[in-house]
Amino acid sequence: MTREELVSQIREKQSFLCIGLDTDPGKIPQHLLEFDDPVFEFNKQIIDATHDLTLAYKPNLAFYESQGIRGWNSFAKTIAYLNETYPDVFTIADAKRGDIGNTSLQYAKAFLDDTDGFGFDAITVAPYMGSDSVTPFLQYQGKWAILLALTSNQGANDFQTKTLNGGETLFEQVLRTSMQWGSAGNLMYVVGATQAPMLAGIRKIVPDHFLLVPGVGAQGGSLAEVARYGMNSQIGLIVNASRSIIYASREKDFAEKARSEAQLMQQEMRNLLK
Amino acid sequence: MTREELVSQIREKQSFLCIGLDTDPGKIPQHLLEFDDPVFEFNKQIIDATHDLTLAYKPNLAFYESQGIRGWNSFAKTIAYLNETYPDVFTIADAKRGDIGNTSLQYAKAFLDDTDGFGFDAITVAPYMGSDSVTPFLQYQGKWAILLALTSNQGANDFQTKTLNGGETLFEQVLRTSMQWGSAGNLMYVVGATQAPMLAGIRKIVPDHFLLVPGVGAQGGSLAEVARYGMNSQIGLIVNASRSIIYASREKDFAEKARSEAQLMQQEMRNLLK
Repeated sequence: MTREELVSQIREKQSFLCIGLDTDPGKIPQHLLEFDDPVFEFNKQIIDATHDLTLAYKPNLAFYESQGIRGWNSFAKTIAYLNETYPDVFTIADAKRGDIGNTSLQYAKAFLDDTDGFGFDAITVAPYMGSDSVTPFLQYQGKWAILLALTSNQGANDFQTKTLNGGETLFEQVLRTSMQWGSAGNLMYVVGATQAPMLAGIRKIVPDHFLLVPGVGAQGGSLAEVARYGMNSQIGLIVNASRSIIYASREKDFAEKARSEAQLMQQEMRNLLK
Repeated sequence: MTREELVSQIREKQSFLCIGLDTDPGKIPQHLLEFDDPVFEFNKQIIDATHDLTLAYKPNLAFYESQGIRGWNSFAKTIAYLNETYPDVFTIADAKRGDIGNTSLQYAKAFLDDTDGFGFDAITVAPYMGSDSVTPFLQYQGKWAILLALTSNQGANDFQTKTLNGGETLFEQVLRTSMQWGSAGNLMYVVGATQAPMLAGIRKIVPDHFLLVPGVGAQGGSLAEVARYGMNSQIGLIVNASRSIIYASREKDFAEKARSEAQLMQQEMRNLLK
């Protein structure tokens, strides 16, 4: 999906919401356990109930890998279902991959390739190994790498916010260096909402790039603050919520309750988009 | 596997060789394509031909993920074969994972758990997201996290070797900070052999920890230099070679030729261990 198509989707749906499909078999409603593939069934019902309010879905690989081959099957069925049924939805593999060049090339193929891979629109990528670990993800037309910059967890302060010689923090250096590897048309950044005021400084370095913002919802970030400090003329924001939406209820009404939660966020987004 | 058992394995086999199972279906001998699972068959024959010379095997996840579900099956069969047939071998999932705490916990379970996961001895982990992204991997008894410190690729110079306020480089800070999260009994570091003289400085920060050293072989690092600068009283080294061994021949004699290459390295290691 190109940048223009992404912006157009946001305007059409009046939403820049991403729903994180961090599906844990231990947390899904009991009645789904009767299905052949409870995790896929859960995802499918969440997607069916929320797709018109939602710009993007973001399955986190960890939750599928932890179920072994069974989990990989659920994952494969989920992205196939999204691609077939809702081709206008933006899909993000939250995989945080990154390795030496020839290896990153394999990861890029696995997640982004439409023929030989899962055909996601985007994948999250870790920056520590530098340029040749990231650039293989930038070579698929209409696809995106979403590079970790400033994450929403406690450990972000261990290295990301440390100051380098010259006065910039590591995450600022990651932004400044990596923006030379791609463009605002194939590279986005992960920036945690728990540190919303820092978005103002980030916008000085990357005014045009889309930011994927986790940490709204269960992790406590505020949507209004994120929009205030992070929005640009092309919106430039995808805001993720996972647990607060997909586990809004653990009863038979889980999909309906997920829709209500998504709707609350979408309504706030509609106002912020005015 | 505990540190004592690891050291004892090295002394018994007179080898600290790790073979990287970066198995690319496009590069394996043609005659294997007749098998149901050519990638597993390739791995099995490489393992059978080299296990007595080899301390560890390290499948790189990217090469399996890029084959989709089929690749995950090959991966699962490879680790199951290693665990059943050669339980004394040290196994490393080269996955470079790392995410917020509750997510890293899922990855740790997936790769390290003997009952609910693949039961690897170790997994490679990316440091960018800090403490809570790493510590979940340190909580399995007898298992290891192998944290990226200084990698062997060109991109290592983008961030890892940048100097922080205070005068240390980022990778030195990663070593110094992370060594407080675990011990020399559950935490190792990836340090590329292409920068062998830098091992002397690294040993000043982490004298006791094991180092996993890629970059010998196809990437051009020297084994003698690695041992000279990196070995400690408990050896403290696992040296990886991938392509130079597993693709030593692409004919029917591939396993035999892989053994010859492994033997050359093991003989050099035997001398270095004296």
